[in-house]
Amino acid sequence: MTPKRIWTAALLVIGDEILSGRTQDKNVAQVATWLNVQGIRLAEVRVVPDNEAKIVAAVNALRSENDYLFTTGGIGPTHDDITVDAIAAALGVPVTVHPDARDILERYYETRGGLTEARLRMARVPDGAELIMNRVSGAPGIRHGNIFILAGVPHITAGMLDALTGTLEGGRPVVSVTVGGMVPESEVADLLRETEQAYEGIAIGSYPFFREGKVGANFVVRSEELEKAQAVADQLQASLESAGYLVVPGGV
Amino acid sequence: MTPKRIWTAALLVIGDEILSGRTQDKNVAQVATWLNVQGIRLAEVRVVPDNEAKIVAAVNALRSENDYLFTTGGIGPTHDDITVDAIAAALGVPVTVHPDARDILERYYETRGGLTEARLRMARVPDGAELIMNRVSGAPGIRHGNIFILAGVPHITAGMLDALTGTLEGGRPVVSVTVGGMVPESEVADLLRETEQAYEGIAIGSYPFFREGKVGANFVVRSEELEKAQAVADQLQASLESAGYLVVPGGV
Repeated sequence: MTPKRIWTAALLVIGDEILSGRTQDKNVAQVATWLNVQGIRLAEVRVVPDNEAKIVAAVNALRSENDYLFTTGGIGPTHDDITVDAIAAALGVPVTVHPDARDILERYYETRGGLTEARLRMARVPDGAELIMNRVSGAPGIRHGNIFILAGVPHITAGMLDALTGTLEGGRPVVSVTVGGMVPESEVADLLRETEQAYEGIAIGSYPFFREGKVGANFVVRSEELEKAQAVADQLQASLESAGYLVVPGGV
Repeated sequence: MTPKRIWTAALLVIGDEILSGRTQDKNVAQVATWLNVQGIRLAEVRVVPDNEAKIVAAVNALRSENDYLFTTGGIGPTHDDITVDAIAAALGVPVTVHPDARDILERYYETRGGLTEARLRMARVPDGAELIMNRVSGAPGIRHGNIFILAGVPHITAGMLDALTGTLEGGRPVVSVTVGGMVPESEVADLLRETEQAYEGIAIGSYPFFREGKVGANFVVRSEELEKAQAVADQLQASLESAGYLVVPGGV
């Protein structure tokens, strides 16, 4: 039996506003969750500023190490939107105006003041690209080979992901089953490790939290097989209960 | 006049739970904001899974490219906490039990069931490290050279950052002044670019949003000099008002 292929993606978040702390990123969790449904694992995230050299270096590292590379941010009409130019530079291709993107923007801006030069920037793509439709705001996303160039505003990103749903080759999604309670993880570390080691094809993550001055944790069993994850989580719950802890399915 | 030195840091977020989408990261914004107050710019973020080879590669890339490297996550007592071992491997030093960390944990767990082997894991450091105090939960953070190894649970991370406040060499913080309103950024792209180009030592970011079906944007003027940022923001506001837009200081 050949080992199952695991499909991976990286996400490159482009934008000074994330690195300055001004904007709380929401795209990492959103893209991660969407990718998993497609059977693709998010293997790495990088956040870089609106700086061409930094974008080029990250794009070239991540696109060769992963099946897919997604980027968010920097595809608007203003001077700080340099993602398309940087990715074209990374690929060694010129930037061209995509005729379909131009048509889409012309229609979108027909009743909104017309297609200005600034707005036409949003029809520029690395030469050879296809478009990713955007129901929300007109300007499309861009696909070039294994690179998917998406907007940074989270609900527009979501619209573009929606347009890609079911179109990418992937494997089996990872599913997870959680149990948790007011259990100090340091008291059950051996049990967690032994449980993980006793089963093939599962991983257990331990995520502590503090509430009202008390320590608790959620234990997340991950697998590509829901039945296996459920069985291990049930076993873990039984072991924790035998040891005197109160834990609940689904975690706390 | 020699150019001003800019101090940079990278942040490495370690944890499967961020990449699976289970946990919404809060440490990027928190660390970014704190660093800026120290006069240090967050230049890059990477998120990697609980995987030694991935952590080693990221640590070695980021620690040499930046003045400081911060890591969050993976320093607890359970089997999936491998950050210390991975960073020691990256540095080529052994892992040792830090005697002060051991003392701290012994005192902390004296009334909480004692210092078990799992808990003693939290006293392990890459050889040669110093401790970063943690008022919140006992187990300390770790400093080794220019690497700062912090907890992943955000309020514990915050406690460790607090212990480091004012101890790191940095330059001048970047300050920002925002103006914004229900302005489509594509209509004012030229004005934004020209304003940015007309002044030295400032950058303008344009951050669009959609609310109740309408398009707006905040324009953020960044500089190391508050008076300069304020003057440019005032000028930008005046120009936008001349062009017929209603914008307000502080943004919307």
